[in-house]
Amino acid sequence: MPGLSRVAMDSTEAMSIKYNTMVYELKQRGKHVLVMSLGEAYFDIPLFPMDELPQAEVHHYSHSRGLLALRRKLAQYFHAEYAVDFDPDEEVIITAGSKAAIHMTFMSILNPGDEVIYSEPAWVSYPEQIRLCYATPVGVRYQKSVYEFEEFITPKTKAIVINNPHNPSGQVLSRKELEHILDLARKHNLWVLSDEAYSDFVWGEEFISLARLDPNKEHAIVFNSMSKNYGISGWRVGYVIANKAVISNVLKVNQHLITCPATILQHYLARHFHQLLEITKPQIQAVLCKRKQVAAYMDQIGLSYLPGSSTFYLFASIAPSRLSSEEFCTRLLQDEYVSIVPGVGYGESCDAFVRISVGAASLEENQLGLRKIKELIEKTS
Amino acid sequence: MPGLSRVAMDSTEAMSIKYNTMVYELKQRGKHVLVMSLGEAYFDIPLFPMDELPQAEVHHYSHSRGLLALRRKLAQYFHAEYAVDFDPDEEVIITAGSKAAIHMTFMSILNPGDEVIYSEPAWVSYPEQIRLCYATPVGVRYQKSVYEFEEFITPKTKAIVINNPHNPSGQVLSRKELEHILDLARKHNLWVLSDEAYSDFVWGEEFISLARLDPNKEHAIVFNSMSKNYGISGWRVGYVIANKAVISNVLKVNQHLITCPATILQHYLARHFHQLLEITKPQIQAVLCKRKQVAAYMDQIGLSYLPGSSTFYLFASIAPSRLSSEEFCTRLLQDEYVSIVPGVGYGESCDAFVRISVGAASLEENQLGLRKIKELIEKTS
Repeated sequence: MPGLSRVAMDSTEAMSIKYNTMVYELKQRGKHVLVMSLGEAYFDIPLFPMDELPQAEVHHYSHSRGLLALRRKLAQYFHAEYAVDFDPDEEVIITAGSKAAIHMTFMSILNPGDEVIYSEPAWVSYPEQIRLCYATPVGVRYQKSVYEFEEFITPKTKAIVINNPHNPSGQVLSRKELEHILDLARKHNLWVLSDEAYSDFVWGEEFISLARLDPNKEHAIVFNSMSKNYGISGWRVGYVIANKAVISNVLKVNQHLITCPATILQHYLARHFHQLLEITKPQIQAVLCKRKQVAAYMDQIGLSYLPGSSTFYLFASIAPSRLSSEEFCTRLLQDEYVSIVPGVGYGESCDAFVRISVGAASLEENQLGLRKIKELIEKTS
Repeated sequence: MPGLSRVAMDSTEAMSIKYNTMVYELKQRGKHVLVMSLGEAYFDIPLFPMDELPQAEVHHYSHSRGLLALRRKLAQYFHAEYAVDFDPDEEVIITAGSKAAIHMTFMSILNPGDEVIYSEPAWVSYPEQIRLCYATPVGVRYQKSVYEFEEFITPKTKAIVINNPHNPSGQVLSRKELEHILDLARKHNLWVLSDEAYSDFVWGEEFISLARLDPNKEHAIVFNSMSKNYGISGWRVGYVIANKAVISNVLKVNQHLITCPATILQHYLARHFHQLLEITKPQIQAVLCKRKQVAAYMDQIGLSYLPGSSTFYLFASIAPSRLSSEEFCTRLLQDEYVSIVPGVGYGESCDAFVRISVGAASLEENQLGLRKIKELIEKTS
């Protein structure tokens, strides 16, 4: 057999998807699994009829920047909600999910050998996407603050990636932290990529989009996701907000890689934009309330977790268990049919953690799962 | 401003998309444009109600190999239609369009410096996708046959790409040609990537999928598209058929890049698979019939084109015009509001050609457009 790509061979399967695939296969075999590993919250949302959409257009390609009507809705939303202004014609591109948005942006800004800094725990795909561009991921070990980033900057550093609100800790970066990162970017001529896919999942604290603090987008590149915020993870609709030069480059890459997200779904989202927001908003609040209750229950039974109160994740410590986080999660799934994600998937420095997603199961089920986690920690200490 | 990726900066905009964007902008300004540049055929297809689909699943991620029910339908179809067998569990992955399928496969097999051979004219994205992997595109100049490929093979050659049926010529490769390419692959240990996106657009000649001649898929990697064959270009649903090792690598890349195509559309296609085939089949035949009439009209008015009778494209010569193919197409669009794609987008050796797509306009409109092309050739000779 001819050879394969070394960088792809060496890449690790996305840990969250790996465990969710195991869940899927257990369910196919008729097992009931308590799922606390999903990267999505389950909302009760209607499916509006698609025959109201412009039938002449729904089957065909859209503009490769994305449907203009949807870009305009997003621009209005960012202005009203986040005090961020961008030109819907030239400063945004709608992509087949925010994962593809980040991938195509890395392809558009990185040269081989460039370094990209991010904090651990980090979303599983940042380092892999960086490596697929032959650039070097520089994961800052748990748990350093952004004020310690400068020591990791070298002449090869091209970008800093932040995830705000943070998956998996749920932390929101303050204005002061964001200003500090932008100051670093100005001083060292770096891009700052701000992955804001969970921007609507914030509870009682101020969320500031990075683009608000860099209105000309000289350093800020923002990613967001309609998939996450609308509870339609499987629809794959995300976007990039950046200056015209960056977007032009992402556009070219997009034309060669994907063309556009599914046109029919773009029409649907443009048409039902505000309706869907109104339907999901109280459900997002309920998820954040459940997250707070889960955190309180963890305090009560003595499970510790990283600080943060946003998103629908908690990053919990499994210390003093002797098991690696993968051994821990595999055993929990196989013995107890409870599914969570190993911390090591979020960085080498995070092997004493697991990611818990509270989005899909009820509070009671989450509490049951947490007791199982606590028991397994005790059994293996 | 921090720097951008050199390889992305140097990449050219997909020529077909560039012209279709110009069309889009002219239409926005109220101009009537005769569109013969689209990479899609316009079918009259119904939109079945989506509320019949499994409502609990349509909003969420699917398996990252794609929905199993759809993979099974595709396996049955390939068995019945193309005498090709593949395992729906491990030898296929459904992707967000065949463009993404090819991109992710290049990422999965290529190392920097590898060479990839293909014939010009070639689909615009092959060379750009190859360069985005830091590999080297080796376009074989128009118009050499596959029997001349061996002289382009070097120790760095990793793969040969074929496009069968061919966009833009409409040529179908014979069994003898396919066997020859596979022999080369066996002799030099190469992958053969067969882009079969137009497999259903074949008129009165035998189409042979490469996988039929390499049943263990030791060298053959096949791409196809539900988008093209079902007239739903904007839905972005394609797939890769290959051996388990290749698919495992593509799966990992897909997990970091896209996750899955839109789940709701996968459910729709699995449910209406045969119905849609029955609806589109006579329309595909009508397009192929129209293509034949267009070719006869070109013979009649003295426009020459490359041999081929499949797909909905013709690759026509503009010789002896003095204009480059880009100058020619820009002038035709600006002066006559007829949109076609410059041949140079299909390779440096093809600057005396233009691509004509007969899929969207009527026969009479296509004939009108052809007369305008003929006139511009005469005016600029």
